[in-house]
Amino acid sequence: MTTPLTPLASPTSSEAAFADETRPSSVTVACCQLALRVGRVEENRQRVREAVRTAAGRGAHIVVLPELANSGYVFESPGELLATAEPLDGATIREWEALAAELHVVIVSGFAELGTDGRAYNTAVLVDETGLRASYRKAHLWNAEKTYGFTPGSHPPPVLDTPYGRIGVMVCYDVEFPEWVRLVALDGAELLCAPVNWPLYPRPDGERPGEIVRVQADAAVNRMFVAVADRTGTERGQDWLGGTVIVDADGYPATALRLGEPAIVTATIDLAEARSKAISELNDVHRDRRPELYARGGKET
Amino acid sequence: MTTPLTPLASPTSSEAAFADETRPSSVTVACCQLALRVGRVEENRQRVREAVRTAAGRGAHIVVLPELANSGYVFESPGELLATAEPLDGATIREWEALAAELHVVIVSGFAELGTDGRAYNTAVLVDETGLRASYRKAHLWNAEKTYGFTPGSHPPPVLDTPYGRIGVMVCYDVEFPEWVRLVALDGAELLCAPVNWPLYPRPDGERPGEIVRVQADAAVNRMFVAVADRTGTERGQDWLGGTVIVDADGYPATALRLGEPAIVTATIDLAEARSKAISELNDVHRDRRPELYARGGKET
Repeated sequence: MTTPLTPLASPTSSEAAFADETRPSSVTVACCQLALRVGRVEENRQRVREAVRTAAGRGAHIVVLPELANSGYVFESPGELLATAEPLDGATIREWEALAAELHVVIVSGFAELGTDGRAYNTAVLVDETGLRASYRKAHLWNAEKTYGFTPGSHPPPVLDTPYGRIGVMVCYDVEFPEWVRLVALDGAELLCAPVNWPLYPRPDGERPGEIVRVQADAAVNRMFVAVADRTGTERGQDWLGGTVIVDADGYPATALRLGEPAIVTATIDLAEARSKAISELNDVHRDRRPELYARGGKET
Repeated sequence: MTTPLTPLASPTSSEAAFADETRPSSVTVACCQLALRVGRVEENRQRVREAVRTAAGRGAHIVVLPELANSGYVFESPGELLATAEPLDGATIREWEALAAELHVVIVSGFAELGTDGRAYNTAVLVDETGLRASYRKAHLWNAEKTYGFTPGSHPPPVLDTPYGRIGVMVCYDVEFPEWVRLVALDGAELLCAPVNWPLYPRPDGERPGEIVRVQADAAVNRMFVAVADRTGTERGQDWLGGTVIVDADGYPATALRLGEPAIVTATIDLAEARSKAISELNDVHRDRRPELYARGGKET
């Protein structure tokens, strides 16, 4: 694929129409539910590399990896985080760029970023065969991320056209803020990719984990696909849920859940479905909004 | 109970503190999943009366009824709707006021309202032993409601203190707009009561209906209880889901679902749980919001 890639201001622009004509009618998304090890950057890079190759071998066009896939998660100190985080032009991103170019895939992955300001960010990147297309810093930090020393992001989540569809990106706890999810949906994202590290919490017998339920709602109220890649295993005593899920535009999982198992979960989906927001003869989940009445939600502090 | 009831501007006002001291530590909520018949106002009123008495007999403090509980739903024409809708000082509301006073319950019900402007509204009312406390007109109309001739509301959903807790009210499709749900949650609602008429749609095998999933998410992202009373049965060929559910502040159903059955579903819950928005040592679902970054969502048209 050699389609030039340009971030678009609006999905109705001429570039979007061009992208529509050239891209495949269905795409295969792979979410890699991996066990990683905090601080073992080389080892994690190898695991990610193998997963991306496996996913591409299964026909994946878009490969989603967990949050902080280069570094692992359960840091013992801000110093350990800073020693592990990498710049956006470092060896890990360079490797992901090479993989994307070789395998003709889009990679969305979590990444412990060492900013040029010397601060650490819980970042997600989107890399395609042309290189690093976007990086996004998690705006809603979870629990000990605040004490590890991550700096929260202060920019909206990116939405970009790729050869395989229009993709939005955010990280883990971000997806629990419907306002944030709405931003990418209103920007025309057909697929939201979210690297996560969901801690394992108790839940009532027979209930699907609430994290997955909330992602289903994110998808349904926006008629947008959502692909979540979670961790699995245990890290310094922290058990991970392993809740990787690809949700369709109706809000239902597109494939069976593989709770807690190491797995590469794939689904072949038609992202064009997300371009219609109609849910009945006279209803459209976006046009039915009454934003003039929601102002307090925007202004509330 | 003779506590004076005053709508409050803020849950931190002195009236709220007063209400906290006098109200019970746990309350029983009943959601009445009824079969009703369009246009049969007398018959529907009787069915509602019997359900409220049964619920009160089971210890309910708060009784939630379906959308349009006086009129039924599947109208054939705007004329039929107008002929069936009632004013807020009509016989149905008077009866509900008498029931609330006699049984010491709060009633939240859907109501086909004939406005003093001669228009029909898909309204919900909250009635307690002091009388009609609030009426709210559905702001997000569903499908044929637009052709039946309902006028959409243009005011935010009400949030009021009652002897049994601080309650927000909205109607059916309204709950699918997270911005709308957020408004009542930020206003301090501990319990959102939603009369609904959920049409029965196909869904993948083994999946919980998406309507319930979305209400679970509404509850969890706000740490707020949600009580939904749905219809059951079939009306002029329209099958109803019967998806009545009471969701706890963690976002899980507080009782077993009774999909499609006529049922009065009750749960005894501690609404005080909804006053803490903490979900980890360092996270709070409301304080973690970044409203300064959500502005586009409020301004978007």
